[in-house]
Amino acid sequence: MRLLYLGDVVGRSGRDAVQECVPKLRQDLKLDAVIVNGENAAHGFGLNVRITQDLLEAGVDVITLGNHAWDQREMLSYIDKQPRLVRPANYPQGTPGRGACIHTTERGKKLLVVQVMGRLFMDPLDDPFAALQQEFARFRLGATVDAILVDVHAEATSEKCAVGHFCDGRASLVVGSHTHIPTADHAILPGGTAYQTDAGMCGDYDSVIGMKKDGAVSKLVRKIPGERLAPAEGPATVCGVFVETDDRSGLARRVEPLRLGGRLSQMIPEV
Amino acid sequence: MRLLYLGDVVGRSGRDAVQECVPKLRQDLKLDAVIVNGENAAHGFGLNVRITQDLLEAGVDVITLGNHAWDQREMLSYIDKQPRLVRPANYPQGTPGRGACIHTTERGKKLLVVQVMGRLFMDPLDDPFAALQQEFARFRLGATVDAILVDVHAEATSEKCAVGHFCDGRASLVVGSHTHIPTADHAILPGGTAYQTDAGMCGDYDSVIGMKKDGAVSKLVRKIPGERLAPAEGPATVCGVFVETDDRSGLARRVEPLRLGGRLSQMIPEV
Amino acid sequence: MRLLYLGDVVGRSGRDAVQECVPKLRQDLKLDAVIVNGENAAHGFGLNVRITQDLLEAGVDVITLGNHAWDQREMLSYIDKQPRLVRPANYPQGTPGRGACIHTTERGKKLLVVQVMGRLFMDPLDDPFAALQQEFARFRLGATVDAILVDVHAEATSEKCAVGHFCDGRASLVVGSHTHIPTADHAILPGGTAYQTDAGMCGDYDSVIGMKKDGAVSKLVRKIPGERLAPAEGPATVCGVFVETDDRSGLARRVEPLRLGGRLSQMIPEV
Amino acid sequence: MRLLYLGDVVGRSGRDAVQECVPKLRQDLKLDAVIVNGENAAHGFGLNVRITQDLLEAGVDVITLGNHAWDQREMLSYIDKQPRLVRPANYPQGTPGRGACIHTTERGKKLLVVQVMGRLFMDPLDDPFAALQQEFARFRLGATVDAILVDVHAEATSEKCAVGHFCDGRASLVVGSHTHIPTADHAILPGGTAYQTDAGMCGDYDSVIGMKKDGAVSKLVRKIPGERLAPAEGPATVCGVFVETDDRSGLARRVEPLRLGGRLSQMIPEV
Ligand SMILES: [Fe+2]
Ligand SMILES: [Fe+2]
Ligand SMILES: [Fe+2]
Ligand SMILES: [Fe+2]
Ligand SMILES: [Fe+2]
Ligand SMILES: [Fe+2]
Ligand SMILES: [Fe+2]
Ligand SMILES: [Fe+2]
Repeated sequence: MRLLYLGDVVGRSGRDAVQECVPKLRQDLKLDAVIVNGENAAHGFGLNVRITQDLLEAGVDVITLGNHAWDQREMLSYIDKQPRLVRPANYPQGTPGRGACIHTTERGKKLLVVQVMGRLFMDPLDDPFAALQQEFARFRLGATVDAILVDVHAEATSEKCAVGHFCDGRASLVVGSHTHIPTADHAILPGGTAYQTDAGMCGDYDSVIGMKKDGAVSKLVRKIPGERLAPAEGPATVCGVFVETDDRSGLARRVEPLRLGGRLSQMIPEV
Repeated sequence: MRLLYLGDVVGRSGRDAVQECVPKLRQDLKLDAVIVNGENAAHGFGLNVRITQDLLEAGVDVITLGNHAWDQREMLSYIDKQPRLVRPANYPQGTPGRGACIHTTERGKKLLVVQVMGRLFMDPLDDPFAALQQEFARFRLGATVDAILVDVHAEATSEKCAVGHFCDGRASLVVGSHTHIPTADHAILPGGTAYQTDAGMCGDYDSVIGMKKDGAVSKLVRKIPGERLAPAEGPATVCGVFVETDDRSGLARRVEPLRLGGRLSQMIPEV
Repeated sequence: MRLLYLGDVVGRSGRDAVQECVPKLRQDLKLDAVIVNGENAAHGFGLNVRITQDLLEAGVDVITLGNHAWDQREMLSYIDKQPRLVRPANYPQGTPGRGACIHTTERGKKLLVVQVMGRLFMDPLDDPFAALQQEFARFRLGATVDAILVDVHAEATSEKCAVGHFCDGRASLVVGSHTHIPTADHAILPGGTAYQTDAGMCGDYDSVIGMKKDGAVSKLVRKIPGERLAPAEGPATVCGVFVETDDRSGLARRVEPLRLGGRLSQMIPEV
Repeated sequence: MRLLYLGDVVGRSGRDAVQECVPKLRQDLKLDAVIVNGENAAHGFGLNVRITQDLLEAGVDVITLGNHAWDQREMLSYIDKQPRLVRPANYPQGTPGRGACIHTTERGKKLLVVQVMGRLFMDPLDDPFAALQQEFARFRLGATVDAILVDVHAEATSEKCAVGHFCDGRASLVVGSHTHIPTADHAILPGGTAYQTDAGMCGDYDSVIGMKKDGAVSKLVRKIPGERLAPAEGPATVCGVFVETDDRSGLARRVEPLRLGGRLSQMIPEV
């Protein structure tokens, strides 16, 4: 299978770029599935019904969320109606939505998408490792599902690396989100799982992690409230990770970053 | 000028790789100066006298530190005797060592190296922006110094980006350290300052940010003390950022990542 | 001198109780000055012009703030016009308002009120110890001022205790705010400074630190947004610290807690 | 039943005072059980075999721990052999020891002691509310057990208050530990559960939460490592909470603080 994961979509700039490039990338890269992190799509804060639908219509198969999942209140009820939305699996029992979903591709392949949230420097949710262990007990790569993608939404690089190794040999791809900056450490771990610490955001990089830079810098320097942060409006770089899995084992054969448009150095996997 | 900054050197694996490649890189890349972050060089925790000398002998010009600066107690007295060591400038007044140093290259060019430490999710030091402001008041790029390198040792990508924009037009390069994972966002900011959120470590990437993975994963999963963390011992990837500055303005003309050896995808700037 | 400090006033319940009892306490306890923390007076979030005036009219002499200082935007401009307002002194240079004020009592005694904010588990401001050092360099207890009250607005008991000892012999009273729960450790430190880790709030204690308990508990248990937190509306306990200073040295002769009304055990100093 | 809970015992000073007063207090206050927090008993850092035995011999029935549970490595194996030791119940599955214990008093009454650790500003363990819910599902106050004591080992007053209300009507006493400063908010909550945000430590209060003040202040001011922190050696104040329960319902009829010896104002419940 060929999978493309795109990191946190930030505001209109990020949405426009993602909606424009996904149809073409599906073709050019012969993708079986596209997974996108949407936690900042609605003006930087959360995701709403309309934007969810726009992203799905553009060819996105599954949308993951994160700590901004509930910024738009309508998500609290909508999430239970939209099976293609995945929020962190380690929210407490009783939380709306689901922490994992099975997506069946056009070719009939089954992809499990799971998200967990880190706890270092973040809201202390339930144990992300225990949540993953539970998913691995339910679904087995290369047996009950053809591919497993783990989105680790976390701040600390150490926690993300640890999730990578914890999943090694049991997932096709472990990819980080939340820090909004792509890392250059894509690799296949010894057990066969592809890994990249952060996919990077889909947004304008002439910014502070997607938000207009003047306000964001001023907030850190002056320590008093200024204007409300708003997404930067320059052209976005679409950032993500492309992975090709072995059809039998579900493990990764190849992993490459994707960076398209905007200010970052360009990188498009060859197929 | 041509400068090479190498990120946090972790343990013996990182040291061996750095000491081996620096002499060759100085030649091949026609470098005017090499700056290395040494806060994890001594078995992962701090830096000592001997390793400092080894790094300098290998051709390193300036060594920056970070939150691990004082892990080896001998550093508290040694740092005042070794002018090539730079610790975060925003430690309180009276802290041993210095937060900036002027290095004069063989060609007689003056390079200012400053380090500041972030405060998000870290020990709350003094204001890093005020510390930078003070340095910019003392030294002017393209006037009193030929190049300025700012090492922002921080956890949060937002704080690092903010430091980048704060320095834009006033420094040659702002480069992050501390997270131990290289980012893929190298770019020249609108004002002419080169920027990369994190240089990445010089260490074994089959690890949790340089430390042996089993112990590090177990620490997060089990929440009870296990073996003391120790550096991973596989071959290191030397990670860094290469920048070429304009001799007149001191601003960046070109910035590229460097990744050499070990497990990460290889990248060597062409000169 | 006889001083009364009252802790964080929370919402209408807290305001009503404070405004009612201050005139009587001024008389009964023969107070020279009343200092109140007002950072939660405006529906739990910040302070505004009208409430400031109400508190001053009720007989409050100086109002301190804290991390909620700017919750009501009008404070950003008002604070410069109202010399009886004191915000943490360790905000960065250029912050509106002042971190200390001199209040001259009816008997002509001079009281210095300083506030600093802690940095453990809080927004990393500038160094609170350096800020205090600066005030002690400007004003000397028993020489240039007759009494010094330090309000240490902090989360961690360790940091508050450390501020207490740092000021011992140089202030009349070091009293904590911010945690909203009165501590029972009032004492005169070896150098003569009265100390209590937290004064406690003036608010309804059948609550979660002053806010309605159902919403506050649910927020911690369910981890998804519910109703916006609002102040509890039951009768408040007015909590504070009473100190009597030596007229010559300015040091403390006596320190006692005050707890009046509401649900907590009652405690009124005898005069 | 009459129960006495004593807060974090710090070092030799705290141990000596506790061991001296417990036998006498058992008699004078006609206590059915004595529960002590021992996480700092071994020179400030953890608890060991010998000190556990000394405390039990002095008449302590159950010892709770906290984030310092494993500071002394021998505890990792000893805890499974000593049923009177209770560590936070919300450590992950597989952690040595137990999060709750049933103690049967001389009069044949059954007391459940549970400890949970908070997560705000602390190591992110599993959900403390879920852990408590599980205990309440197994044991019912006034039915299967005669009294339930919940030790909430936490930093934030908000989280401790929330645990209090969460347990209200289902526990006899919810008492906080960890901050080492006694609070003055003892009260019986509307549902009948006695509550105090922190019991306070048993240690020398001329200190920074039990540790020698010079080193502790210097650590915050200077930000470089100094001498290793060590317990203060002056006379301790024994701090705790006394509660009398209704024999039928198990709920609280009366709650009072205890403060004995050392520097704090003295408070001994009358019986
Ligand atoms: Fe995000
Ligand atoms: Fe996020
Ligand atoms: Fe670091
Ligand atoms: Fe490091
Ligand atoms: Fe506050
Ligand atoms: Fe407050
Ligand atoms: Fe403790
Ligand atoms: Fe503790």
